[in-house]
Amino acid sequence: MNEVVRHLRAHRSIRKYQDSPLTDEQIHAAVVAGQAASTSSAVQAYTLMQITDPSKLERLVELTGGQSKVAHCGAFFVVCGDMRRHELLCQRQGQPFEVSLETFIVAVVDASLFAQNVCVAFESMGLGICYIGGLRNDLDEVDELLDLPTGVLPLYGLCVGEPAERPSARPRLPAELIWCRDHYPTDDEVLSQIDAYDTQYQSYMEARGAAAVSWSMRMVGQHAQARRVALAHYYRTKGVKLS
Amino acid sequence: MNEVVRHLRAHRSIRKYQDSPLTDEQIHAAVVAGQAASTSSAVQAYTLMQITDPSKLERLVELTGGQSKVAHCGAFFVVCGDMRRHELLCQRQGQPFEVSLETFIVAVVDASLFAQNVCVAFESMGLGICYIGGLRNDLDEVDELLDLPTGVLPLYGLCVGEPAERPSARPRLPAELIWCRDHYPTDDEVLSQIDAYDTQYQSYMEARGAAAVSWSMRMVGQHAQARRVALAHYYRTKGVKLS
Repeated sequence: MNEVVRHLRAHRSIRKYQDSPLTDEQIHAAVVAGQAASTSSAVQAYTLMQITDPSKLERLVELTGGQSKVAHCGAFFVVCGDMRRHELLCQRQGQPFEVSLETFIVAVVDASLFAQNVCVAFESMGLGICYIGGLRNDLDEVDELLDLPTGVLPLYGLCVGEPAERPSARPRLPAELIWCRDHYPTDDEVLSQIDAYDTQYQSYMEARGAAAVSWSMRMVGQHAQARRVALAHYYRTKGVKLS
Repeated sequence: MNEVVRHLRAHRSIRKYQDSPLTDEQIHAAVVAGQAASTSSAVQAYTLMQITDPSKLERLVELTGGQSKVAHCGAFFVVCGDMRRHELLCQRQGQPFEVSLETFIVAVVDASLFAQNVCVAFESMGLGICYIGGLRNDLDEVDELLDLPTGVLPLYGLCVGEPAERPSARPRLPAELIWCRDHYPTDDEVLSQIDAYDTQYQSYMEARGAAAVSWSMRMVGQHAQARRVALAHYYRTKGVKLS
């Protein structure tokens, strides 16, 4: 295993940080590394908005469902898909501009390839990271708080900082289930691989002192009710044509 | 600059490959490194489908707009957001299941964090990669060709292999435009940064012997017409509720 693969495999999401702030040099280096990722036809459809204003951070703790780490880490960022630049350029040329579903997917993918490189870079500096999906709990409020123009589409938060915990790795689905060849596996194949994984996942949860739930039951619980149902309305108000 | 950051910054998309196939060991190592990326509440909503069937590869060359590298590289993959496993688990428990916009975004993000790690890992083995957005040209046809069940959502292709070219890096937008603090920049700030970048981008294109188009004009051209307008219909037939 080479050093880069070893580094990628050493990732753990960090949920407790020391308060020491990141330096601008660290952030700049991670952003440049993020920008080196592939981007669809060079659109570079992303923005990394760092939030430093203490009152905004406290409000973001509430909006993400009480995640205090948002205000207590080395730096907190909002990762945005960003079509604002393209919109301004089209306006300047008198051309119409619209964010279609295709454009939206490009922005989400572009932002995520960028963000993952940013995270891998931060981790290579000895820092820990955690993506914050809870940012999507109430994007209308996030949008108002950050005063985001049309075309700037917040997707998730990102905590970065000096780790104040050393969690163990949560087991993943068997690679044989994730990687298939020419044919998607049959339902029986999928379920039998998951059954084996459930046992492993449950042991891990027990060892952590958490409720010994299987992955299957956790997934069923998570999907029993629709979540964040206001999202489509929010993105539509931002000019995204979802259909 | 540490070795990992140097590695990330050395990325170039590779569009010409030698035909030597990847080994299973290489692919397995990259998949495991991909799985180490963060995943939203452990959903692991992705599948990497390798296509080896020569007739399918030839058809995919056509469907991606004549990109012959799809059939001429070390391995070609289709990166899918994957909610199939969750659907099967809910069915087994007699629970309803629906892919909402939130679930769709989770799948696109999860798949992209995974895919970017996979690419970084492949590149650390001396291989080159290229994402193939052209896969979305006609997903109905792709779906039928690959016989994908509901919940398996093809997003983009991925070529991997021994590079047969050494391209230079295409310049990126200034990091100062991508990374902002507390406030999104004003329209004037955005446009003046882009104007400076345009000059740099144009020189790069000229040096490559390509048409000396600025980034701005390229972006305006790309967004003048809506592309891949059938996408929303396709994802809806796959059970995604976009609104």
